[in-house]
Amino acid sequence: MPAVRRPSVVLAMSPAHPPRLFDDRLRQRLRDLAEVDVDQIIDDFTTDEARAALHTAEVLLTCWGCPPLDADVMAATPALEAVIHSAGSVKSLITPACWQRGIAVSSAVSANAVPVAEYTLAMILLAGKRALPIQAAYRADATRRDWAAVHPGLGNYRTTVGIVGASHVGRRVLELLRPFDMRVLLADPTIDVATAEWLDVRLVGLDELVRSSDVVTIHAPDIPETRAMFDARRLAMMRSGATLINTARGRLVDTEALTAELATGRIYAVLDVTDPEPLPPDSPLFAMPNVVLTPHIAGSLGREINRMGALALDELERYARGEGFAFPVLAERLPILA
Amino acid sequence: MPAVRRPSVVLAMSPAHPPRLFDDRLRQRLRDLAEVDVDQIIDDFTTDEARAALHTAEVLLTCWGCPPLDADVMAATPALEAVIHSAGSVKSLITPACWQRGIAVSSAVSANAVPVAEYTLAMILLAGKRALPIQAAYRADATRRDWAAVHPGLGNYRTTVGIVGASHVGRRVLELLRPFDMRVLLADPTIDVATAEWLDVRLVGLDELVRSSDVVTIHAPDIPETRAMFDARRLAMMRSGATLINTARGRLVDTEALTAELATGRIYAVLDVTDPEPLPPDSPLFAMPNVVLTPHIAGSLGREINRMGALALDELERYARGEGFAFPVLAERLPILA
Repeated sequence: MPAVRRPSVVLAMSPAHPPRLFDDRLRQRLRDLAEVDVDQIIDDFTTDEARAALHTAEVLLTCWGCPPLDADVMAATPALEAVIHSAGSVKSLITPACWQRGIAVSSAVSANAVPVAEYTLAMILLAGKRALPIQAAYRADATRRDWAAVHPGLGNYRTTVGIVGASHVGRRVLELLRPFDMRVLLADPTIDVATAEWLDVRLVGLDELVRSSDVVTIHAPDIPETRAMFDARRLAMMRSGATLINTARGRLVDTEALTAELATGRIYAVLDVTDPEPLPPDSPLFAMPNVVLTPHIAGSLGREINRMGALALDELERYARGEGFAFPVLAERLPILA
Repeated sequence: MPAVRRPSVVLAMSPAHPPRLFDDRLRQRLRDLAEVDVDQIIDDFTTDEARAALHTAEVLLTCWGCPPLDADVMAATPALEAVIHSAGSVKSLITPACWQRGIAVSSAVSANAVPVAEYTLAMILLAGKRALPIQAAYRADATRRDWAAVHPGLGNYRTTVGIVGASHVGRRVLELLRPFDMRVLLADPTIDVATAEWLDVRLVGLDELVRSSDVVTIHAPDIPETRAMFDARRLAMMRSGATLINTARGRLVDTEALTAELATGRIYAVLDVTDPEPLPPDSPLFAMPNVVLTPHIAGSLGREINRMGALALDELERYARGEGFAFPVLAERLPILA
């Protein structure tokens, strides 16, 4: 086992996050692992205090609210070797200047994928049951009805779920769907047949997936190639009674086209992300009975942030032991990542 | 392999069910397995036509809407040996006269448990996220908020789920919860420690379960011992912010006491069953933001009825081969069954 040193660590994030990332046990573990002032939380790199802390930092432990690590920050951090991001995407944070310096980057994207996949699974199961539209209908009128007659195709048995994107979240959704009597399709242009076979899922083109699925769930990154991938043409391909779930990014769906398709009542949508976000209060989506809207809560919130904190400290321990990160972010993969 | 004979089978249920139980493939399988008129669906045993069919029936294939199999029906079915019920509870159907005749009874309770457990899993995952109250709050006010501050304890990580009753549904929920970072407790007075160990779950008393759980989910039978088991005293024991899920039977919860506890806003509830059912349209539960009400849809509906039909035909095939049922209903277990 390599010698364990106690690297110099600085916390850079919004001050609200450390108490959520680190409960008392994890806070003590952080102190044991590193030279760190756990009460100094930096969200502005330009202050004198921040400059002094950055000067000796070997590791930046970051989360949401950390400013971009640009060339100025690189100049101010002569000892910096690694960034451990205890949240998902590092895109708002890591700049070309970091890669040029050869900074090692780790992210808790896999831990952040867990709650997103769980939210998605719940919404897939309820979509098959039409549980939320039925709830609204029951609230409006308490008389008994034959719900299977009201909603043809009702029920979770031999339905088809289409997963768009074999991202961390997409793969976790795939795993979580195994105990259920559902057929699962995957569309992802970056995945080859051998990988799909290893994932034990049927790889199809996006159009075929959209045409064949009772639930379509989006887990693709927000990159130029995916912008408005769900446009009027693709939305029109969806089966009548099918549900579109978006927990990825709002820009992957053409909001105007989706609003028009939903207004017909032909399909359902569960949207945790929207474009814009939040939606304007007068968005017609708020009033539609076939739409479930949540305000970007599928990712880590509350207790779930603790899971990312635990993962970040596991990564810090690996760094202290001189080992590589278990969850490295690789520069060459960035163009296809969320 | 024993010789396969084609027993004489009569369908007894509401006429709406056979098309849902048996798709074209299963309908053909039924014809192959049995002497049966698949177009004769009996829901009244007193007609001349019904009497004629019953006279030669060896097997009754039943579902919801089959009248009670009382002494008169026993007298009219001299050849009857078995009842295959392609739904859950047989209590409305099977009478002491059936047991006295030694009729073999099978039920699709295990197939019917699947959708109930799936609905429950979805509601457990969403309860931890407070997704449905947050959805309602977002609809009312689209501005950004710190949801973890609004809802202390938010998130599915190291939460505790209490399962009340190791029924088919309770056991399936237990299995489905394995991939998640949740601690699971079980309360069931009919289960011993060895069984709980085999189920790999911690067995506790009901009061301890209620006090320790973030979500309490009811999967107990509706029997005299369980009536109003959730009364004012027990509901007051629930953690603040905890969720009570009832997909079992309304009478297990004291509706008045639950309404009073929910009115304080201290706890949440997801109720697929109520007492009475449906609720009167003026029930205050309909208007409460901390309550999700669905009209008894967790059990098999639509496509899910097909799963019960497939199981019933598997049982019919076992009968035709001279084998015992895979899912027999045993008279001595009836007092503790749903």
